[in-house]
Order: sequence, then C-alpha cells, then structure tokens
Amino acid sequence: MQEVDIIIKNGLVITIDSNSTIYSKGHLVIDKGVIVEITDDESVLTNYQSKKSIDASSKLIMPGFVNTHTHTGNTIYRGFADDMPLKKWLEEYIFPVESKFCTVETVRLSAQLSIIEMLKGGTTCFSDMYYFEDEVAKVCDEIGMRAELGETLLDFPSPTAPNSDVAIDYTEELITNWNAHELVTIAITPHAPYTCNDDTLVKSKKLAEKYDVPYHMHVSESKYEVQQSLEKHNATPVKHLDDLGLWKDGDFAVHCVHLTEEDRELLKEKGIAVAHNPRSNMKLSSGIAPIQDLINRGILCGMGTDGTASNNNLNMIKEMDTAAMLSKVHTMDPTSLDAKTMVQMGTINGASLLGLDDKIGSLEKGKSADVIIIDLNQAQLIPMYDPYSHIVYSMNGSEVETTIVNGNILMENRQLNTINEEKILTEVKILQEKIKKEF
Amino acid sequence: MQEVDIIIKNGLVITIDSNSTIYSKGHLVIDKGVIVEITDDESVLTNYQSKKSIDASSKLIMPGFVNTHTHTGNTIYRGFADDMPLKKWLEEYIFPVESKFCTVETVRLSAQLSIIEMLKGGTTCFSDMYYFEDEVAKVCDEIGMRAELGETLLDFPSPTAPNSDVAIDYTEELITNWNAHELVTIAITPHAPYTCNDDTLVKSKKLAEKYDVPYHMHVSESKYEVQQSLEKHNATPVKHLDDLGLWKDGDFAVHCVHLTEEDRELLKEKGIAVAHNPRSNMKLSSGIAPIQDLINRGILCGMGTDGTASNNNLNMIKEMDTAAMLSKVHTMDPTSLDAKTMVQMGTINGASLLGLDDKIGSLEKGKSADVIIIDLNQAQLIPMYDPYSHIVYSMNGSEVETTIVNGNILMENRQLNTINEEKILTEVKILQEKIKKEF
Repeated sequence: MQEVDIIIKNGLVITIDSNSTIYSKGHLVIDKGVIVEITDDESVLTNYQSKKSIDASSKLIMPGFVNTHTHTGNTIYRGFADDMPLKKWLEEYIFPVESKFCTVETVRLSAQLSIIEMLKGGTTCFSDMYYFEDEVAKVCDEIGMRAELGETLLDFPSPTAPNSDVAIDYTEELITNWNAHELVTIAITPHAPYTCNDDTLVKSKKLAEKYDVPYHMHVSESKYEVQQSLEKHNATPVKHLDDLGLWKDGDFAVHCVHLTEEDRELLKEKGIAVAHNPRSNMKLSSGIAPIQDLINRGILCGMGTDGTASNNNLNMIKEMDTAAMLSKVHTMDPTSLDAKTMVQMGTINGASLLGLDDKIGSLEKGKSADVIIIDLNQAQLIPMYDPYSHIVYSMNGSEVETTIVNGNILMENRQLNTINEEKILTEVKILQEKIKKEF
Repeated sequence: MQEVDIIIKNGLVITIDSNSTIYSKGHLVIDKGVIVEITDDESVLTNYQSKKSIDASSKLIMPGFVNTHTHTGNTIYRGFADDMPLKKWLEEYIFPVESKFCTVETVRLSAQLSIIEMLKGGTTCFSDMYYFEDEVAKVCDEIGMRAELGETLLDFPSPTAPNSDVAIDYTEELITNWNAHELVTIAITPHAPYTCNDDTLVKSKKLAEKYDVPYHMHVSESKYEVQQSLEKHNATPVKHLDDLGLWKDGDFAVHCVHLTEEDRELLKEKGIAVAHNPRSNMKLSSGIAPIQDLINRGILCGMGTDGTASNNNLNMIKEMDTAAMLSKVHTMDPTSLDAKTMVQMGTINGASLLGLDDKIGSLEKGKSADVIIIDLNQAQLIPMYDPYSHIVYSMNGSEVETTIVNGNILMENRQLNTINEEKILTEVKILQEKIKKEF
C-alpha cells in the first residue's frame, strides 16, 4: 500500500480533460503536489493510504479557475468610483488615488486581499498586471498561490519606475528572481499600444524573446483607442502591433472589444489568444467583445475578471455567467457560449493562454493538483440536471468549500490555512479610512 | 420603558426612503410586525426593552428585495434545459416536463424550494405566475412569506384548468380565499396576449376591476411575438392591449423587450409599470429591454428574476448586477442604471409595481418590517466606499445573514426558522431523479 498526501473520494468529478470525462462517484489521489490517480475505480481507496482524506459525497470536484487578467494591486479601490465614464474614472479618481496610495506596502496588502477573495471563489491561478510585482510574487510565495506576474510598462512614470526603461530592467530582475519558482512565472506586459511607444513595445518584446517568457497587453479595449491608433499609425492596434513584428504564437491580447475583420484574421493567423473581461467592458461601457466569432475562427479565448476597480469582484463564476449571458443576447443565439464552453474557458483555456496547460487547467494524471471542491447541497444548486450549467448559471462562488493549489490545501471548509484572513481584512479597513479621508 | 419585539442596533442602515437616508450607526425597532422607530439616536436603546436584540455592527440593514416576476412552481426544472432556442426549449423540454410533472404536490415542493432560495438571498416578497397558485398561497402562509400570486390564464389546457374560463373561476376563488390575508395578495395574470384571446383578456380584466386587484402579464418578450401581433391585430402587443381598453394605471407589463416609440408613449400615458427580467431575456436571446429610456420617460420599472428554468436563480442581487452591467454596455453610457437606481428598482420600485409601497419597499416608521441584515465582513465586500455599489456590484447574495418578513425572523445566521430546509432539499433531489429517468 502506497502512502500519499491526499485522497479526495466519492465526489462528482468534472475533469475538463480532452474527452470531457465526468465521474459521478470519482476519486482523486494527490501526492507531492501532483495528481497520481483520477478514477471511479473504488480499488484506489484500498491501494493507497493517505495522510489526509476528504469525503466529497454531495460535492463537485473540478480544476480551479484560471483568471487570465487582473490587477490585484488595485483591489483596495474596489467600488471607489463607479457609474462614470472611463476618462473621468481614470483621470479624476483612479490615477489620483493610485498616485497617492500605490506603494510597496499597499500593493502587498491589496494582493493579499485579492488572493483571499480568489481562493474563496475557487480561483487557483491568476495573471496579474500592476506595479511592484516583485512584492506580489513574494505574497504568492508566502500563501502558496499560483500566478503569472507582469510589471506594467508605461511611457510615463509609474509607482514602480520613472520610465519604461527602468520598468523593463525591473522586469528582467523579476525574471531572474522568480522564473525558477514552482508557482510564480513572469510575463512581459506593456500596458497597451496607446500608452507605450514603439520603442518600449519592441524593447520589451526583445526581453520576452531573450528569456522565452509570455508577452501580453491590453489591446483594442475602447473605440477611442482604436480611433487614436488609426489616426497615429494608420492601423488598428492589432495591425500596428503586427506591423512592428511583435505578435508571436502564444502571446495573448486582453479585451479585444473592437476588432475589424482584418484584426480577427491576424489574431488567428499569428496564433494570438484573447483574454475576455466582459464585466469590466460592460461596466465601463467599452463594448462587447465578439468572443463567439473568435472561437468560431479557432482563436483561443480565456476569461479574466480585470481589476475590482472596474468589476467589482475577482469572481470567475460571476465572470463566466456574465460572458455567457452577454454573448447570447449579443449574437441573439441562445446556444452561444454554452455552459461547457464557458467552464473550459475558465479552466483549461485560461491555462493554455498562460502557457501552463501542460501543468494545470484540468484534472489529469501527472498534472499539478490545483483542485477545488464545491458543496452541491445548497438551495440554489438543487435540483441539478447538468453540472456545467450549475457552475456557470447557478453558482455564485460562495459554494466553493476547499481550494487546493499544487497539492497544498489553502482553504478547507472556507477557512484559509496559509494566510490570516481576519487580520488582512482589518488592515484593509484601516487603509480604506485613510483613503476616504483624502478623497 | 416600552416593550417591543425586536431591536436591531448599530448597523449601517440603508432606508431607501424618499430622501435616501442612510444611518452609519442606526437602530431599528420592530413591534407587532411594524417598524416603530428607525434612527441613529442611541436613546432608543434605553427607551425600549426588546424580547429579541440583534447587534448589527459591521452589518448592513436594508429593506428586503421585491421580486416582481417569477414562476416558483418551475424551480424544480432549474437548469433542466439550457443553451437552446426558446421554441425548442419550450416545446421539447419545458412543456413536456411540465405536462408530466406539474401537480399540486410538485408545485408545493417547488414553491418551498423557491422561498428557501429567496429568503437566503434577501428577497422578502415575490410576484408569482404559475399553476395551482392556491397551493403556493398555502406555502407562503405556512412559511410566513409575502407574495402576490397569479394563476396563469391560457387558452389551452393548463395543469390547473382545462380552459381559461375555469382558470378565471379558479382565480376568483383565490381572491375570495386569500385577499384578506396579511401576506398574500392575488393578482389577475393572463399569460400573454399571444396565448390568450381577446375574450380571455377582457373577461380577466373585468375580474380585476370587480375586486380592484392588480393585473399584469408577459408583454413583448420576443421579436416573434411582436411580429405575430402585427400580423394578427395590425398592432403591437402593447397597442393591441390598449385597443382593447385593458391598460389601467397601476397595471404592469413583464419583459417589454421590444417596444416601439408609440408603445413607450402608451405605457407612460396609461401609467403602466414594467418588470425587467434581464437574465432570462439574455439567456433566451430575447433581447435587451430599453429600461434606461423607460425610466427617462418617467415609467416605473422594477426587477424580476423570471423562473429558474431560464435564469437559473432567484437571486435579486445577481439580477440587479446584470441589469446595471447590461444597460451600461447597451446604451454605451456607464452612468446608466447606476447602483442607487438599481437598489431602488430592487426594493421600493418593486413594491410600487405590486401596489404595496405603502407597506413595504423601504425602512420607514409605520411600514411593515420586511428587513434583511447583510454581513459586510467578507473579503469580496472589503474595502467599502459606497454601500449601494456593494449591494449591486460586489455582493453575491450569500452575505445575507438574517431575513425578516412582517416582523418575523424567517432566517437568522443563515438558518431558516419556519421551514425545514434539509428536508425540502432532500425531497427535491428525489423528485429530480424521477424527472431524470423520464427525460
């Protein structure tokens, strides 16, 4: 009898493997961070002895969600400025509050708060783009959270760096410091083609190539941005980036709300994936990204929550639900972005976007154990005819009971094990009072 | 010192009164089902002695949500048939499963399940349209839930009645049986102009006038319905109902997705309110109701979840969030359906739609105590700069801790007091297995 770390037994297992295998009474064996067995064969329960055993009867076992785009450093501004136009929101609220309050310390606290919220909602990996990302990496390391982190590159001074060259150097240090880490990977993330000049975009791409790390940025989020690009470069943002020779298979673009036919063909041709952030796009009135059309063309699409300043949650279930609902009314086709497609976008497709699909995104033998357990015995989830439908349309996130990253149980029965939730929430409330006083 | 039933103290009170009064540390005194005091004056704590005292520090106190349109009898089909066109959904799934399983017993069970879900999400009053509504009334009476109930009138046989005349007689009995009840009111609810002939519509309106009870129905939900009406009556559904002389100040129309300029003017002119059900309209690809435009014209709009067969929840917070997000991207105006407007739509406006705004919908002295208490000490609600924003954009419903209807505590610390939740969930799971076997 082999000794292993964890056995989760008797659960409804949604694997999200390439055959979409579902076990109605399945067992998951985890050892040294890796899935050793996944099966409905009861004999595994006698073949292995586990230090920790979880009975998942009446529960759903599935891969954790992969949030492909967020800004964990701005969660301390959740709901700080709502119901206003993008320009006013940015210039009168977000930029001023950030310039006053964005420090290493607040980014640390904000990242801690964000990871608490993500773990409680079943997210086990996130892609971040903000400032002081070295500090975010430390927080991930301390908590045991998986993340792909990118320092925002800008042509104007950021809280981390006075200019893009310093920010690029900072990013190179990040790569040196963290890319051997088991959970943290570093990405190169210029903010956007409208906030980075061609020099910054090209230099940063060279850095990505030097270290063979992921490259992504905000692209074609607003109509205004596309107009500006057409005036300045006589090309859409997607086309301009292509003209600069920057797009490479495996890169991804965030938002992609406003795309021409040529843009879509280019994304497909170059193998560029898209991170879809519907709630932020709706709330800021940016527009509706044509996700079903991109999928029809064979373009890989994942889900992102964006930051809480424009969402106002880091809740992947809410995001998948909104994406599906929006696509159905946008295309006037109720079969658009069906529940199963949405769950794939929220898990394995997100993992693919981040170049991590060999490791995470589905529950399969040999993959990392990034697993969540969901309590199905709740009024809003009963009855159940189709688990995919419930994940997307009926859950709200609070049903996630246990969250495991890389074989470590970070949350069990909604209690966090590697971070003091109460302490962090109290610290954020104190900071909130300071921010309120100034604004 | 006066003895009263309940004092809720030290909470952030959102009253939704006509001045939008907020007390940052407020107290609510409840006696015999009625709000006796609402104030931030601490002296009330010494003026009254209460049988029950609730400390709401770190909590939000607000009126319960009013769900203006649902079908509680179909909650047992939650997620039964998703991601398909309306016609296929209705004809191949919903109608067949209803014709096989809709009985007095399943409607009872489904209403119980629905009320459990609603109480857990902070809804204290709902407007129902389904079959065997006498049984739904009994369930409301047993649990202590407030509701306006309407038996669906159809020209073809329904589970309750072989034809519309029998259904109208059944409705008259409902009025006789229930209209003196403290919590239950009866409404007259033809299904829609496309499923009821003019005779049924006129007869049922006469019944509404005879007893002076509310009158409402589904109107202009789909493009197809409008086309059909134009072909048959040479008028849109709104116009056709007006041609029949049916619209009367205080009536309301459910959905109103497809409205002409003339329709909008008519609704305004006749004082017809609108129940907005965005999630159902999105999921079935019905379209986007022009709610901001209707509000601009001075038309009263409330929120409804519709049934779970097309939602898939009875969650008013989810519904308000979706409505706001959708309107912002539909109008391309981020100020559209702002958070405060949404909270009003979900509470006082809903109460007005049901003709109950003298009794419920806001926390004011003399009104019925339909109150919810929300736990603010949760990661997804921290920090907080604006409570309206949090109610609409950040909450998911699971934060509702205590639900009080008419001064009775129906849920406290998420435990239901007047219904055995575990027993009902188990019974629904048994029924689900039976339904699964047949379909």
